Amino acid sequence: MPYVTESNITDVVLDRWKAVPDPRLLQIMQSMIKHLHAFIRDIEPTEQEWMSAVEWLTRTGKLSTEKRQEFILASDVVGVSMLVDYINHRLADEATPSTVTGPFHVHGSPQFADGADIATGAPGELCYIAGSVRSLDGRPIAGASLDIWQADGEGFYADGSFVVQTVLPVPYSIPMDGSVGDLMARTDISPMRPSHIHFLIDAPGHHRVITHLFKKSCPYIETDVVYGVKAPLIAEFGKLPAGSPTPTGQIANQPFWLLEYDFILQPTSKPQSTKPMVADTIS
Amino acid sequence: MPYVTESNITDVVLDRWKAVPDPRLLQIMQSMIKHLHAFIRDIEPTEQEWMSAVEWLTRTGKLSTEKRQEFILASDVVGVSMLVDYINHRLADEATPSTVTGPFHVHGSPQFADGADIATGAPGELCYIAGSVRSLDGRPIAGASLDIWQADGEGFYADGSFVVQTVLPVPYSIPMDGSVGDLMARTDISPMRPSHIHFLIDAPGHHRVITHLFKKSCPYIETDVVYGVKAPLIAEFGKLPAGSPTPTGQIANQPFWLLEYDFILQPTSKPQSTKPMVADTIS
Repeated sequence: MPYVTESNITDVVLDRWKAVPDPRLLQIMQSMIKHLHAFIRDIEPTEQEWMSAVEWLTRTGKLSTEKRQEFILASDVVGVSMLVDYINHRLADEATPSTVTGPFHVHGSPQFADGADIATGAPGELCYIAGSVRSLDGRPIAGASLDIWQADGEGFYADGSFVVQTVLPVPYSIPMDGSVGDLMARTDISPMRPSHIHFLIDAPGHHRVITHLFKKSCPYIETDVVYGVKAPLIAEFGKLPAGSPTPTGQIANQPFWLLEYDFILQPTSKPQSTKPMVADTIS
Repeated sequence: MPYVTESNITDVVLDRWKAVPDPRLLQIMQSMIKHLHAFIRDIEPTEQEWMSAVEWLTRTGKLSTEKRQEFILASDVVGVSMLVDYINHRLADEATPSTVTGPFHVHGSPQFADGADIATGAPGELCYIAGSVRSLDGRPIAGASLDIWQADGEGFYADGSFVVQTVLPVPYSIPMDGSVGDLMARTDISPMRPSHIHFLIDAPGHHRVITHLFKKSCPYIETDVVYGVKAPLIAEFGKLPAGSPTPTGQIANQPFWLLEYDFILQPTSKPQSTKPMVADTIS
């Protein structure tokens, strides 16, 4: 039955695409064809709508550069980036969960001593982050590294505790001047990401964690446009008056914010789960 | 429950994307999110695979120009273009069915009188196409126009019958030097389109039909890479010796091919079906 009809075309295509020697590519293409055809049969696009989709995808590709990836942004706003993140980081419930890496991580960022000012003059309200990196059993992990961005910077520390000085993060909108922005502009969905700071934490013998901490009082905390907010990542940023002791041991001559947080890393001796997390923490 | 988990993220995203005032866009986005998340949950991509997909989509967009549309080609090779074509052209079983338009149609092509040589010197074996354009009840339709490409050209005729002189079509490969070609090269799927000639037929009071006729003896007839072959569109091209009468009334001084075909058009008084065609012709 090689000739297509509306009813058999999906089966004909699936059968043709069995001729894929790489078993993983075979699996991906079979699933993609099934779901894509089911989507098309569900919405029954007009030819004009189909052409609009082709043009939108083309524009999204052309907008992407070394510095801007519009397809990642598209993946972000429909929750796919976070879903992929979940699938790849099925940690124990007690471990600090991961969240989307985002497009702004820089490799080879400058190294700072514990307690250093990583904002290096960036504008904003003074903010200290202090805490520890611990294993699932609660013990501090020696020799961990903490890569922090928002204000770029990288801090190293050795005894499981850390202090960095930075500026208070502020909420921002995703770029609205591209194909994803055009789509968002046709919705009433907030394009804002809530205030957050990114962390990449490596520690000997533990799973790497790439995550954010989110400022609890941020008005956008419940409507993150990329769905990155997980309950364990919401952290209290406290405001302290001038004259208070800072985590670096000085007396502050100005008011400052303080975020205290302990990261819990899962030992590599305990592998990540390969099964979907059905009953993970829900807030 | 605004914070995401692996199990609730699809529902959280679907709920957020209810904020779409345009009901058609709402329907499309809800269906797209459901099917895209189901696909991701099915294949569980690694982060590297997800990034490969982002890069493939980006490259596909960047390859597309006024003259080449790599996303349409991608849609073609997974049968989506044909599925969209089916959905938009649900004609009566007796009517000549449509097939993919393809990227090569030119608007405003030259007009030719009945019997003219539309190949205008293009290389190839001499081929006549003769036939009629009729309505569902079998009556010839007056005032129809026949736009033919392969060798570009447009023929007009008035009495329901037509004759054109062209060259025998030959099979060809889809472009293999782009992102779709890279994907096809990882499969054992034939990249060939079987020999065919395109037709766009407009006739007063009838549904427009954009279609191909395929050469029955072509070795690629059962493996068209874009799934365009429908049983009623497979036509016998006969080879006649020098000295035979041509459909234009001469005696041929060389061997020639002859394709005879009657196109059956559906009157607009009989609307296309809006329901999926489950029991259409299967060969």
